[in-house]
Amino acid sequence: MVIEGGYWRDILAQPAALADTLAGLDAAALADTVKRCRDGRFHRAVLTGMGGSYWALHPMHLALLNRGWNSILLETSELIHVLPGLLDSRTLLVVCSQSGRSAEIVRLLDVKQANCFTAAITNTPDSPLAGRADALILTRAGEEFTVSSKTYVTALMALKWMADALLDSSLERSRDELSQVVPVAAAYLRDWRSHVQSVEPDLRDVRDLFVLGRGASLAAAGVAGLIIKESTHLHGEGMSAAAFRHGPWEMIHPALYALVLAGDGEGATLALRLVQDIVAAGGRAAIVSEDARESLFRLPRVPASVRPIVEILPVEMLTLALASVAGREAGRFERATKVTTAE
Amino acid sequence: MVIEGGYWRDILAQPAALADTLAGLDAAALADTVKRCRDGRFHRAVLTGMGGSYWALHPMHLALLNRGWNSILLETSELIHVLPGLLDSRTLLVVCSQSGRSAEIVRLLDVKQANCFTAAITNTPDSPLAGRADALILTRAGEEFTVSSKTYVTALMALKWMADALLDSSLERSRDELSQVVPVAAAYLRDWRSHVQSVEPDLRDVRDLFVLGRGASLAAAGVAGLIIKESTHLHGEGMSAAAFRHGPWEMIHPALYALVLAGDGEGATLALRLVQDIVAAGGRAAIVSEDARESLFRLPRVPASVRPIVEILPVEMLTLALASVAGREAGRFERATKVTTAE
Repeated sequence: MVIEGGYWRDILAQPAALADTLAGLDAAALADTVKRCRDGRFHRAVLTGMGGSYWALHPMHLALLNRGWNSILLETSELIHVLPGLLDSRTLLVVCSQSGRSAEIVRLLDVKQANCFTAAITNTPDSPLAGRADALILTRAGEEFTVSSKTYVTALMALKWMADALLDSSLERSRDELSQVVPVAAAYLRDWRSHVQSVEPDLRDVRDLFVLGRGASLAAAGVAGLIIKESTHLHGEGMSAAAFRHGPWEMIHPALYALVLAGDGEGATLALRLVQDIVAAGGRAAIVSEDARESLFRLPRVPASVRPIVEILPVEMLTLALASVAGREAGRFERATKVTTAE
Repeated sequence: MVIEGGYWRDILAQPAALADTLAGLDAAALADTVKRCRDGRFHRAVLTGMGGSYWALHPMHLALLNRGWNSILLETSELIHVLPGLLDSRTLLVVCSQSGRSAEIVRLLDVKQANCFTAAITNTPDSPLAGRADALILTRAGEEFTVSSKTYVTALMALKWMADALLDSSLERSRDELSQVVPVAAAYLRDWRSHVQSVEPDLRDVRDLFVLGRGASLAAAGVAGLIIKESTHLHGEGMSAAAFRHGPWEMIHPALYALVLAGDGEGATLALRLVQDIVAAGGRAAIVSEDARESLFRLPRVPASVRPIVEILPVEMLTLALASVAGREAGRFERATKVTTAE
């Protein structure tokens, strides 16, 4: 029985947050950035964030690398303490932070060189990050309770938009692709109660959870590792599906549950085989794909470039179900704070 | 009571493996690679491996980035399926693989362009990787039972040597720094029994384990996440110490144990505070540093560039202790295989 708290409300509000964010996307906000790119001003892009914002940057990172950019994806903590030398005038710094004011982001703004061009994505217009960015895309997720949900999917939306702009892709097509996720996410979430109920029996005595993916699906896998822990207190770990076969495989036991994100292409074939092999080894596993049998795990058909946005929805259902099984309200914090203020 | 199996023997044989590998390091093996670097042949370095070998590449990746290289660190699975376009004639491909024949490595050799210059680190001279590399550094870890231990520390050694060569650092100094780890690792391991016994009481009812680090210490944290799972069947996760505060924090409970690798500089101060804060929040935590009170967690004093090699030793002690508490032989595989043959 799901206790319908603030996190649950945020999950259901994601389609509205996506629609609002989409309506606010504006090519003019990035015009100067794009011009500087065309002028060859940047030798590299450094993409940075913490927590869910870090994982949200992953699809953009792959897109840039695939198009010949020198892209470096780093947690902000690593950037400021280990590699501050990257923050110079030849770097396009892309910073993603829901609050725009977590401990590492504030430090980053002090550490970077003044002429390091900074393009920011944040949900907080009056944050230090928004105030000191050279280019700014605001997400319009509204207030968020605790666990990142609305701010994560809207950050993915803003980052795809930014990536398409930097790569000189058609922003008309970008907007069209992004607009497709709003109605399908709404349709998927309308069935939230049956989604949650359908998976509860499988989760009753689960002790270890893994969410596995490849390529752009690593974004949802990585975020899953954070939000399962914080919304349910269970040990959920996000991991590369390939890495799971190197070592963690040995840990498979009947109370282990692996959710495998299929993605597309050859990876999807490998994902199916991984699910079968985990079950054969004595664990439990399910696949998240457009062809999944269970409606909970069946992704809406959307362009691959926006799939990361809908891929997190089944993970969110899983967190509601895990908390329901444990008799607690998903996402009600007992220890953590919404904004991480200590490094 | 530690059951003294093959993994335990491999752990104790690490100093000998390091000494043998050091004796075999040869500047001539890299002369052609270094010349090509000086000639400006490479626009980027792509560093790749799977499992422990992937994490072993992390310190070299940071060293290259810090010296202005365009370095990209990618799991081999990601490289071959998501970013094969990186494997062209302008790329210095650095491949690390103990066996030289895991599923992804074999595929990599087929996918890369013929003129993509490949520098390999492997423990297996007759492997496909060794046979098809343009430059080769062999580690001399000998046969390994199951879990990576000897091959991991010797790979770190070979990779530091390679990084120093590429960065035109003094190879004499490099050899001197590397030689320092052999006697101190031997001295540390001579006390293995008291190390293990000293931590056993703290581990009796531990359910969730985290190993946390920053910078080059992320290598040991990442490997810890693999080897704790495979050698003890317990859910150990490696993670950035900074990321642990974003989300996972909420999961802290009395059966959670966090080992925090201090590293150096400001990170060490943050690590100490993290340990205190985890304990204050109701979890258990210990710090691994040169100043740690418990001899188990006290690292030998070595140059920072070779610290990753000794940083894994306390983690290995932890795996022996966890298995001992559970009454099983650490590292005896029930499901996994030594060489991962499926993707």
